[in-house]
Amino acid sequence: MGSILSAAEDEEQEVLIRKELDSYVQPAISSSFPCDNVSEEENNLDSLFLAPSCFVFVPVAIGATLVAYLAPVAAGSGIPVIKCYLNGVKVPEVVRVKTFIVKAVGVVLSVVGGLAVGKEGPMIHCGAVIAAGISQGKSTTFRKDLKIFYRFREDHEKRDFVSAGAAAGVAAAFGAPVGGVLFSLEEGASFWNQTLTWSIFFCSMISAFTLNLVLSAYHNHPGQLSYSGLINFGKFDNISYSFVELPVYVLMGTIGGLFGALFNYLNHKLTVFRLRYLYLKWLQVTEASLVAMMTATVGFTMIYFSWDCQVLGSDPVEYALQFHCEDGKYSALGAIWFQTPEASVKSLFHDPPGSWTLTSLGIFFLFYFLLACWTYGLSVSSGLFIPTLLAGAAWGRIMGICAEWLFNGQDWVCPGKFALIGAASMLGGVVRMTISLTVILIEATGNITFGLPLMIVLMVAKWVGDYFNEGLYDIHVQLSSVPLLAWEPPPLSNNIYASEVMSHPVTTFCTVEKVGRIVETLTSEPHNGFPVVDSDEPASLSTNRTFGRFRGLILRWQLIVLLQHKVFNETAERQWANKKLTLNDFRDAYPRYPPIQRVHISPQEKEFSIDLRPFMNPSTYAVSHTASLPRIFRLFRALGLRHIVVVNDQHEVIGIVTRKDLARYR
Amino acid sequence: MGSILSAAEDEEQEVLIRKELDSYVQPAISSSFPCDNVSEEENNLDSLFLAPSCFVFVPVAIGATLVAYLAPVAAGSGIPVIKCYLNGVKVPEVVRVKTFIVKAVGVVLSVVGGLAVGKEGPMIHCGAVIAAGISQGKSTTFRKDLKIFYRFREDHEKRDFVSAGAAAGVAAAFGAPVGGVLFSLEEGASFWNQTLTWSIFFCSMISAFTLNLVLSAYHNHPGQLSYSGLINFGKFDNISYSFVELPVYVLMGTIGGLFGALFNYLNHKLTVFRLRYLYLKWLQVTEASLVAMMTATVGFTMIYFSWDCQVLGSDPVEYALQFHCEDGKYSALGAIWFQTPEASVKSLFHDPPGSWTLTSLGIFFLFYFLLACWTYGLSVSSGLFIPTLLAGAAWGRIMGICAEWLFNGQDWVCPGKFALIGAASMLGGVVRMTISLTVILIEATGNITFGLPLMIVLMVAKWVGDYFNEGLYDIHVQLSSVPLLAWEPPPLSNNIYASEVMSHPVTTFCTVEKVGRIVETLTSEPHNGFPVVDSDEPASLSTNRTFGRFRGLILRWQLIVLLQHKVFNETAERQWANKKLTLNDFRDAYPRYPPIQRVHISPQEKEFSIDLRPFMNPSTYAVSHTASLPRIFRLFRALGLRHIVVVNDQHEVIGIVTRKDLARYR
Ligand SMILES: Nc1ncnc2c1ncn2[C@@H]1O[C@H](COP(=O)(O)OP(=O)(O)OP(=O)(O)O)[C@@H](O)[C@H]1O
Ligand SMILES: Nc1ncnc2c1ncn2[C@@H]1O[C@H](COP(=O)(O)OP(=O)(O)OP(=O)(O)O)[C@@H](O)[C@H]1O
Ligand SMILES: [Mg+2]
Ligand SMILES: [Mg+2]
Repeated sequence: MGSILSAAEDEEQEVLIRKELDSYVQPAISSSFPCDNVSEEENNLDSLFLAPSCFVFVPVAIGATLVAYLAPVAAGSGIPVIKCYLNGVKVPEVVRVKTFIVKAVGVVLSVVGGLAVGKEGPMIHCGAVIAAGISQGKSTTFRKDLKIFYRFREDHEKRDFVSAGAAAGVAAAFGAPVGGVLFSLEEGASFWNQTLTWSIFFCSMISAFTLNLVLSAYHNHPGQLSYSGLINFGKFDNISYSFVELPVYVLMGTIGGLFGALFNYLNHKLTVFRLRYLYLKWLQVTEASLVAMMTATVGFTMIYFSWDCQVLGSDPVEYALQFHCEDGKYSALGAIWFQTPEASVKSLFHDPPGSWTLTSLGIFFLFYFLLACWTYGLSVSSGLFIPTLLAGAAWGRIMGICAEWLFNGQDWVCPGKFALIGAASMLGGVVRMTISLTVILIEATGNITFGLPLMIVLMVAKWVGDYFNEGLYDIHVQLSSVPLLAWEPPPLSNNIYASEVMSHPVTTFCTVEKVGRIVETLTSEPHNGFPVVDSDEPASLSTNRTFGRFRGLILRWQLIVLLQHKVFNETAERQWANKKLTLNDFRDAYPRYPPIQRVHISPQEKEFSIDLRPFMNPSTYAVSHTASLPRIFRLFRALGLRHIVVVNDQHEVIGIVTRKDLARYR
Repeated sequence: MGSILSAAEDEEQEVLIRKELDSYVQPAISSSFPCDNVSEEENNLDSLFLAPSCFVFVPVAIGATLVAYLAPVAAGSGIPVIKCYLNGVKVPEVVRVKTFIVKAVGVVLSVVGGLAVGKEGPMIHCGAVIAAGISQGKSTTFRKDLKIFYRFREDHEKRDFVSAGAAAGVAAAFGAPVGGVLFSLEEGASFWNQTLTWSIFFCSMISAFTLNLVLSAYHNHPGQLSYSGLINFGKFDNISYSFVELPVYVLMGTIGGLFGALFNYLNHKLTVFRLRYLYLKWLQVTEASLVAMMTATVGFTMIYFSWDCQVLGSDPVEYALQFHCEDGKYSALGAIWFQTPEASVKSLFHDPPGSWTLTSLGIFFLFYFLLACWTYGLSVSSGLFIPTLLAGAAWGRIMGICAEWLFNGQDWVCPGKFALIGAASMLGGVVRMTISLTVILIEATGNITFGLPLMIVLMVAKWVGDYFNEGLYDIHVQLSSVPLLAWEPPPLSNNIYASEVMSHPVTTFCTVEKVGRIVETLTSEPHNGFPVVDSDEPASLSTNRTFGRFRGLILRWQLIVLLQHKVFNETAERQWANKKLTLNDFRDAYPRYPPIQRVHISPQEKEFSIDLRPFMNPSTYAVSHTASLPRIFRLFRALGLRHIVVVNDQHEVIGIVTRKDLARYR
């Protein structure tokens, strides 16, 4: 139930971030554009045109500097790293306080800088960090240990909290508690655990609730709890669909899948380019600033050359920009560029027919698509959902306008609905999630009947996209060469056996091992897990490839804790507190243990020996050398393992399999 | 994607059932009550009073006979057996065609007979049967084999289909596709499998969609897809809640938990009584008929002595009954008793304040509660959701009326909302599901903002109820002594080791075994799984409790198929089609193989031997005797195992653990 706490905290935190952010964004816009809502006279557009594009890169440059120099792991949306973390892969620094701060400040700066970014990915990541922090009851960064929650100081437990935090993040961002749970499950969990799922659900409900409470106070109706998430696409109240529309949705799903695949293709190439040439930190900062300037320039150029003016008052644009429109009118492109992207999405969904012209939407889509593609992967904190939804809503609305023209008079043709479908299909085409996205969109639009069309669209988009490449998050995971395991064993792997997959020879320890050998091995080998074998056999059996009878597995950090506490057989009598070295000592050390070089072991101590049996894990999973790859894969996946020892028929260690070995097969 | 098909079929089937049912119910009511909608003169109530109570038991008696004599497994709601099936336990006849027919016909008869039953449980069960049937592409009952879907003829695959069918059932019953998925997961799945979940989701969406399509045609708006499930509680459109209400909800959750615990306690006692004294089939039929008569009698007596008359026209009662009310009025209790229970729930949720008096609701609740409790567990096909919701809605409405009186004038006090909360808390108190119920109720009422209160109520009800006893489904599972594994290993079991849990001595086979010994063993031992061990050691090592080195596991039915096909070493040359005995032969036999007595083996053949190595499962999971109980438990749960072999350090078989052994620890 600690997760409850975590959620509450979490939520408040995020609300604060968002408020902070709102108050940053609006002043930023209105200060750089004194023409906001002003209809007195025509503004001097030419000077306006240059000024902001010069200033706008400042916040982005700061954000990029923070990310590049302080916490590179805070770049991007954070969903890929959370995905890896939940999958059981240790990505360094993912849930550190430093990352949290850089992420939160960074996303504010990116949004202020006018980049084509959203804030949900970072929010989800922040939720996860907070949850992880709370679960540990200590912060290594702040050197503070509350000495509580000892029992959560394990990889496994911490992971559960991170799931809950991510779910709470989704719940807060989209007002989608059920979607949050499904998101956590779809991205992370491998074992459906009743209690865990229930805690996650409760956590995300509380998150949605707290947000509701804060929003109700913010909107001056304290206690009236009917607000949904931060990113509110407005309720589609009277939406219904008929059978004949389904082919149209399938078509739109296909288009979304194609655009998504294109987006991923371009972004993939770009990321490879960045990895190869832009690995220097100052280059990354420069690129980010360049993109910020480019975005501003494109926006202004587009507004400058556009004569698409709409009558004021007929729609919910909050900060109407007049530019060179007549009095009482506003620039449509100005509106779409200078609202927050969320508000633009909402406008595209709900503006009455006729608010947008084909040309402005077309041009906007083209440039926004390219900018969003360029932006994702920059060394700034940036979400992917909203830009993708906005680009999708733009072409969806274009389709809607065309449909209006084609099927004139049919009452099911409503451009807003098409914008929604377009947004969904674009998002589906880029990220390729399905279940959780469907539910998130259902919850964010408050409309359950529209679930099936959304689902069809997302599925078609996924199918079409998968034909060309992987989802964008997966592409980024791949490029960072993290050994993430897929959901299913690789196809055609039934005839691959453990003996082919495993690494050998294996570095093992004997049940009673010399301290010197441990120190030496830990120094020379990078591995994190070592099988422990019976020591009654001569150590030099390596010729026939077996390494003694398998007894258990010991992890690097456990060995280091043992060395730190000098739990040697020879000193056992003197400090027979040996027995006292219990779970808590191991948990105190969690999660950061010193490297082996930092542990001081005197030459005399090197002659001592340690009995590893009380500390190793005696019942680790071991498989026979005849086990097939899919079987090993399922064990890893279902039980969240990191190492499996391969034994022969005599139960002697002949190999070891880790995630890295499995990830090689695709 | 076969599941897609299954869902579609499934859905149509269920819609048909329901329509059939509707057309049964209405005539049944209107024929036994010629006073329907009649306001001419007062009816002769005294003769009316007796007539139906005598006739009403006929359908129930037929239904009970069908269930008792043809398919005892079709009794009750079906959810407990589906739960066992999905958990990996083989309950005989659960997914047979016979069961399906008895279940579907039986529920129609129970509803016609006026019992306090719902139809969702049976619908879910029917969905599961249809899914299972489709996945196999054959029916042993109809002796028809379409020779398709061979690859689904495995326990594991079939189970996936059953999950999807159950989800589709929920989707159709409540219009809750997401709830259906969560229901399947909460009740059954142990391993979150992306593809599987996605198929289940798609299946239940299609189910909801097909239902929508059929309903839209039925209501004469073909193609206008805005209908939700069959059981529609009406949209709560303008429901919102404020912070101050939460304590009230917690209180109501507590009350629901208490009522639920009472319900379960009474039903438990009753079920034990039934198991002990009413095991004869004719007694079961008599009891069911008695309950039917009792229900009718209670209903009529209540209406007869009630003077609670309400003005006609102000509310949505469809078949208003006048009885001894003045013209233009109708009997409130008549309305609640003689609508379908679903419609009564809807009335309690949505009737304007003042439609019900405290006394009539109180009396109704008391008797309905007892009747529902008596009814569940009868040998008839009967759902539990609706009766529980109705009882809960009744006391919820009572609370609502009290609250109106206490907090007069506060605009959050709306008795319908209280009825909803009461219904949820009662249901939660009885069945103790949480995640899926929350989502089902959210979807069935079409209101997302009300999710948190529902969740709080369900959770409090579960906590309170769990303090006293288990959920009703679990109680029934326990009483039928099925070895269902809980979600979590039993508490305090960390110090229990495999060597204590396992059964030994173990009946094993050698890698090359004599036919005679196989036949003998299969005849004398009831076990379904046998470890295969190295045969180079003398067979009489049983003194020191080890049984040779572990090689693999072979199942009873695989042995029987081998014997049927006479795959003997000695005949290998003659019919060297040995190699031809592949997967498909095993799959053809699935799921019903003859008992060993039916396989004819000549005395000469008994001297032959079989090489089991090509047929056994060589990489079954084996654990060391030092493995702890929680570890074994997790392996069973995560991988859906039925047998685990326990080996010693030399990898020799020393014991075997099955679900039955684990279920002993609680
Ligand atoms: N004790 C060992 N002896 C020999 N090879 C090993 C041992 N442990 C790991 N390996 C091999 O080293 C390679 C890299 O291992 P990997 O980094 O995945 O392991 P690890 O560092 O122990 O695990 P993790 O990174 O998950 O902590 C793999 O091919 C693996 O099989
Ligand atoms: N091959 C065997 N040798 C000895 N004991 C066994 C063997 N198989 C099962 N048992 C024991 O018999 C008891 C009843 O077993 P159970 O009915 O659970 O097994 P099963 O029939 O093989 O499995 P299932 O019922 O799931 O098909 C358990 O205590 C189990 O340990
Ligand atoms: Mg490593
Ligand atoms: Mg058995």
